[in-house]
Amino acid sequence: MRLPSTVHIMEVGPRDGFQAEKAWIPTEKKIEIINALSRTGVPEIQVTSFVHPKAIPQLADAEEVLGKLDWLPGVKYRALTPNLRGLQRGLSFKLDTVSVMLSVTESHNRANGNRAIAETLREIEQMVPVARKAGFDIVGSMICGFGCPFEGEVPPSQLEWVTGRYLEMGISHLGMADTIGVANPRQVCDTMARLLDKFPQVQWSLHLHNTRDMALANVVAAMQAGITRFDGAVGGLGGCPYAPGATGNVATEDLVNMLHEMGIETGIDLDKMIAVAKMVREVIPHPLDSFMVRAGKRTDLKPAPKEQQKIT
Amino acid sequence: MRLPSTVHIMEVGPRDGFQAEKAWIPTEKKIEIINALSRTGVPEIQVTSFVHPKAIPQLADAEEVLGKLDWLPGVKYRALTPNLRGLQRGLSFKLDTVSVMLSVTESHNRANGNRAIAETLREIEQMVPVARKAGFDIVGSMICGFGCPFEGEVPPSQLEWVTGRYLEMGISHLGMADTIGVANPRQVCDTMARLLDKFPQVQWSLHLHNTRDMALANVVAAMQAGITRFDGAVGGLGGCPYAPGATGNVATEDLVNMLHEMGIETGIDLDKMIAVAKMVREVIPHPLDSFMVRAGKRTDLKPAPKEQQKIT
Repeated sequence: MRLPSTVHIMEVGPRDGFQAEKAWIPTEKKIEIINALSRTGVPEIQVTSFVHPKAIPQLADAEEVLGKLDWLPGVKYRALTPNLRGLQRGLSFKLDTVSVMLSVTESHNRANGNRAIAETLREIEQMVPVARKAGFDIVGSMICGFGCPFEGEVPPSQLEWVTGRYLEMGISHLGMADTIGVANPRQVCDTMARLLDKFPQVQWSLHLHNTRDMALANVVAAMQAGITRFDGAVGGLGGCPYAPGATGNVATEDLVNMLHEMGIETGIDLDKMIAVAKMVREVIPHPLDSFMVRAGKRTDLKPAPKEQQKIT
Repeated sequence: MRLPSTVHIMEVGPRDGFQAEKAWIPTEKKIEIINALSRTGVPEIQVTSFVHPKAIPQLADAEEVLGKLDWLPGVKYRALTPNLRGLQRGLSFKLDTVSVMLSVTESHNRANGNRAIAETLREIEQMVPVARKAGFDIVGSMICGFGCPFEGEVPPSQLEWVTGRYLEMGISHLGMADTIGVANPRQVCDTMARLLDKFPQVQWSLHLHNTRDMALANVVAAMQAGITRFDGAVGGLGGCPYAPGATGNVATEDLVNMLHEMGIETGIDLDKMIAVAKMVREVIPHPLDSFMVRAGKRTDLKPAPKEQQKIT
């Protein structure tokens, strides 16, 4: 197996996770969780989305959250800015990176962003100089890159076309998303190997939902293709309000556990990440999709039972 | 990725799944589920364990279940026979295969079988001629082959020693089990590649629990090492009464979904397997660990939403 020695993980729970929660999470709880995440050793956190509060009321407190965060050196802070107006809201903060938002299929882009791909691309083009001037790195997302809930399979030519459009705009850090958790390991390995080969100038990251339990297998397949950057959401939070059935990002603690067990470094303290997942559990009114919270670490050895009574 | 074109799946829900259920499953429900499984296209089913009824009361109806089954041609029926007495109980049935039971660590073998490995091996030696005379194929299990809840890591030399002992007794079909779900993909690939290389005469199968969400990743890693036989339990049933925290085999329907999505044939009708998982859900008094039951198939496309109202 061809595997990297280190992997970069971005924590997306405070954005992709919280936005899927219907019940209001108090602003101070959001801040508490993000601050705890920033002390796990995770190198990057997507802290919020500057989305219209009518679209996602849960993230209406974006400014307040960012205004009160502990901004720790050594941690990169990213926000999702779905449009120019969202980007303008982010300009007063010392963000390292903003993500721009584009689905690779017309029907999902319309469902998620309420407009055609061409319209979204025109707005991203307007956003680029604004973000660059503010000193923000820009990451272009490729939502539903491995499959669409409305259109099904995505032709490779479409992925290449979208990649090409991003590159023309000077955006070479791209995030391929399996938004609805349909990707399989062979597809991930083949797709990413082809994209890496065709666009060697792109720095790719993968955003994988665990809807059909293939996320960790897809991580391994992607690493074998040469990918070393992945998103995770603490506690397995997440979903997409406009992608029916899109339950749960891969849990950061489950991802970190697998990578560490494989001898791949992440810089993250697994115990601390599990502790944050348990904090999240207290805040969220439903069970978490976290295997590590449920099962504990491999190294949590049990005492062997005493001699059993012989059954005769 | 080096991948096989077909994979053999054994369904173990009626044995490894049912035995983990505390609440009594009526005998006729067991029979109904096994009969439904036998019509999914799955080539092999582990239908019960001839274990002492005081040890696992849930399987006390082994004879009644086997007596009333539809024995379909084309399906292989296997029982677990943990000792000579269990084997003798199985002799009156037209089983294709019996599994014998051995943990690769002393402490787990004592917890699971109440005796030392050497004692278990002596009894297996007595069982071999009896099983052969009855026309049964014998599969030797290697429980906790990837890690033990009491001892932790298992040295490769121990796996090789157990394999050698089985081979000396003429047992060359072996089942390596990640009983407590601690194996990681690198370990599975390396371990199985080493064993395949060292013992080319052995036909290996893998039995993987999904305790830490690595089962499907481990399947892919094992296939890359050359393994093509896997166990699954419908609905993700399972656990081990003597392995604390050992929740859930990999769900057969999740395994089949991944393999089919990867273009690997199993002979199983996924829709029928999901339907059996839903039957199981009606019988079991707790939620199933089945991603496919929860999320549905990738090809269950959704209608795209109508034009959304523009948020201004």
